[in-house]
Amino acid sequence: MSEVEDLIKKIANQRGVTGCMVFNNQGIIIRTTLEQSLTIHYAALITQLCNHTKNTVKKLDDGDDLTFIRLRTTKNEILVAPGFSRIFSSHLSSLSDRDYILVVIQVPVV
Amino acid sequence: MSEVEDLIKKIANQRGVTGCMVFNNQGIIIRTTLEQSLTIHYAALITQLCNHTKNTVKKLDDGDDLTFIRLRTTKNEILVAPGFSRIFSSHLSSLSDRDYILVVIQVPVV
Repeated sequence: MSEVEDLIKKIANQRGVTGCMVFNNQGIIIRTTLEQSLTIHYAALITQLCNHTKNTVKKLDDGDDLTFIRLRTTKNEILVAPGFSRIFSSHLSSLSDRDYILVVIQVPVV
Repeated sequence: MSEVEDLIKKIANQRGVTGCMVFNNQGIIIRTTLEQSLTIHYAALITQLCNHTKNTVKKLDDGDDLTFIRLRTTKNEILVAPGFSRIFSSHLSSLSDRDYILVVIQVPVV
């Protein structure tokens, strides 16, 4: 798991990043840089949104797959990598067997 | 409405753009460059996803608002502007009283 910690630290230290979280695809928190109750809130809502978005992409084209979600809001950018553990499987051997969701919150890049 | 047509044409002619659609926030099609049945499919699914995403952002922070969704999939990028008519209200006087959703599909910008 120290691989995940290193990755989270690297991301969290990027300029403009205000939060970084890893959940499994049931919304169970694996790692977070935010306060626990806020992370629980994000885990529940973002996991549901991820599943809805994955299904939407599948229904639009059965041969297509969701790889990334970028939400721009008035206050933030919310970046969501639905299957990030598979993308980083060479670095994250401890996670690569299942789908983990990486969420990064950052100040909007203008 | 010719304002909308001009805007749609401009966007549709951008390099890499493969489709451009405008719906109202009930999923009624206002304009499209795609074939009707595919547009109906997009209208239903993207309108629902927009509403779910708006609610998610509100639940995460009541003082925040969704302004843009960017989905990256293995085949496409799907760009969704939930309230684009308010953004372009100076150009789109005929639409500015209500929320219209602009959807652009493009080949992924690497």
